[in-house]
Amino acid sequence: MSVEIVEVGPRDGLQNHPATLPTEQKAELVRRAVVAGSRRVEVTSFVNPAKVPKLADADELMAIVRDEPDLVPIGLAMNERGLNRAIAARVAEVNFVVIVSDTFCRRNQGMSSAEAVAEVLRLLPMARDHGLGTSVTIGATFGCPFEGEIPLERVLRVVDNLEPAAPDEVALADTIGVAVPSQVQRAFAAVRERTSANLRGHFHNTRNLGLANVLAAVGAGARAIDASVGGIGGCPFAPAATGNVATEDVVYALERSGISTGVSQDAAIDNARWLSGVFGTQLPGMLSRSGGFP
Amino acid sequence: MSVEIVEVGPRDGLQNHPATLPTEQKAELVRRAVVAGSRRVEVTSFVNPAKVPKLADADELMAIVRDEPDLVPIGLAMNERGLNRAIAARVAEVNFVVIVSDTFCRRNQGMSSAEAVAEVLRLLPMARDHGLGTSVTIGATFGCPFEGEIPLERVLRVVDNLEPAAPDEVALADTIGVAVPSQVQRAFAAVRERTSANLRGHFHNTRNLGLANVLAAVGAGARAIDASVGGIGGCPFAPAATGNVATEDVVYALERSGISTGVSQDAAIDNARWLSGVFGTQLPGMLSRSGGFP
Repeated sequence: MSVEIVEVGPRDGLQNHPATLPTEQKAELVRRAVVAGSRRVEVTSFVNPAKVPKLADADELMAIVRDEPDLVPIGLAMNERGLNRAIAARVAEVNFVVIVSDTFCRRNQGMSSAEAVAEVLRLLPMARDHGLGTSVTIGATFGCPFEGEIPLERVLRVVDNLEPAAPDEVALADTIGVAVPSQVQRAFAAVRERTSANLRGHFHNTRNLGLANVLAAVGAGARAIDASVGGIGGCPFAPAATGNVATEDVVYALERSGISTGVSQDAAIDNARWLSGVFGTQLPGMLSRSGGFP
Repeated sequence: MSVEIVEVGPRDGLQNHPATLPTEQKAELVRRAVVAGSRRVEVTSFVNPAKVPKLADADELMAIVRDEPDLVPIGLAMNERGLNRAIAARVAEVNFVVIVSDTFCRRNQGMSSAEAVAEVLRLLPMARDHGLGTSVTIGATFGCPFEGEIPLERVLRVVDNLEPAAPDEVALADTIGVAVPSQVQRAFAAVRERTSANLRGHFHNTRNLGLANVLAAVGAGARAIDASVGGIGGCPFAPAATGNVATEDVVYALERSGISTGVSQDAAIDNARWLSGVFGTQLPGMLSRSGGFP
């Protein structure tokens, strides 16, 4: 059995990390992830630079890394302008976002959840026409910082409503880090019944359950897992939320469970140590401190 | 469904934490754990004070807390002298330790694994004759810092060899924090077939899998879980090993999974914040930073 690790450090990680990296170091982060074994890397997001200054170098960064061998660069887009920039920048895949709760969706992307679905239905075929891979991340699947509990039915309705666009991949995201494995298992099992898209899991370690949720998602059919080097990241709308699950920790958890990832644990640990050195701070991932086993 | 959280912060936590607490503050830690809802508390260990100076106040601490209402004080003992001290100090339960690997067992308690089993077979009936509850913690069940992988068969042999003493409880301990949930599930399921003792799980969060392993153990029949306030602790023979799973994090993971613990999440978080204030440092547990949900 194998599961793909999608490296999201350059985008989700850096966007929400306190420190900022210069573009050339972001490019090195991307290259290092590929060398370690991740092919799919969420390189950047094509959003309003005034709103997300940390990703204002999206086009420039893509120009540097675009022809990196073995890299499948992913760009995030939330509207047509973003999609057009992503296409021009020659991403291989575009990732759209729909947040299940309206309050959170409005704060994140200025539209209701239903409007975000409608936007994906309109834009995704355009992306496909340009030969791009397509995925949709469903945010706040397991809980919302503004609306609290999110019934699974609401998530399933979003999945159903996205079906006409037939995305290649659908991700269930625990944006604020509140899920427990039983909830993850139920959600992935139910979504799997509704769509033929590949499933991806996106987890934050806010309440120390990140890896437990990764393993539950994989057990219930997720074929890809988002992770960030060193576990960098956060969530702008949930200040206490800590980073994505750390790439090197996910590699340990999966490989020691007999699930191959294609990512070298030593190289992933080395990347986390490098990034920790660049920032001059300890990062949340644990394997760079503990080392592997045996 | 319900699972008991055994608070091990005062012993396993403090023994291996860099900072030291005065006896009166240890007593407050014990009292706070009981107020939060843990009845069974590993108060101290009756070992050679020259070897473990941090626990040199074992008798004094027990004298302070012994008559605390609702407290079931547990004392650790590794030889007859320790057991006699524990009895004199009026613990309600004694916890013995056997480490599966000989190298680790010799370094921890100066005897081979087989010798440690023999010692338990000799001492446990004495403890029972004094009306004490009895448990045996099987250390390095999931891996050893000196011998590497530990085949499950070796663990099962220890369990079988302990059976004549009929301990009330057997704990499988991931002393150095290397286990993954599938391994935990297998071990608990196999041990459950071999003994009528209650099962307890003991996990460190060294590789970020502590809560995943707790949930796996509970799913496979563990009726009690060791945890420490704030996640304090470590392992003297595995320098990179971080603390026990944090009490407040375990409460969140179990309660949100529909498993009751009898421990108040708010009180557990409050205890972790208090201890963090006492030490003047951030502790590894996450819930004291994130808060609960919803």
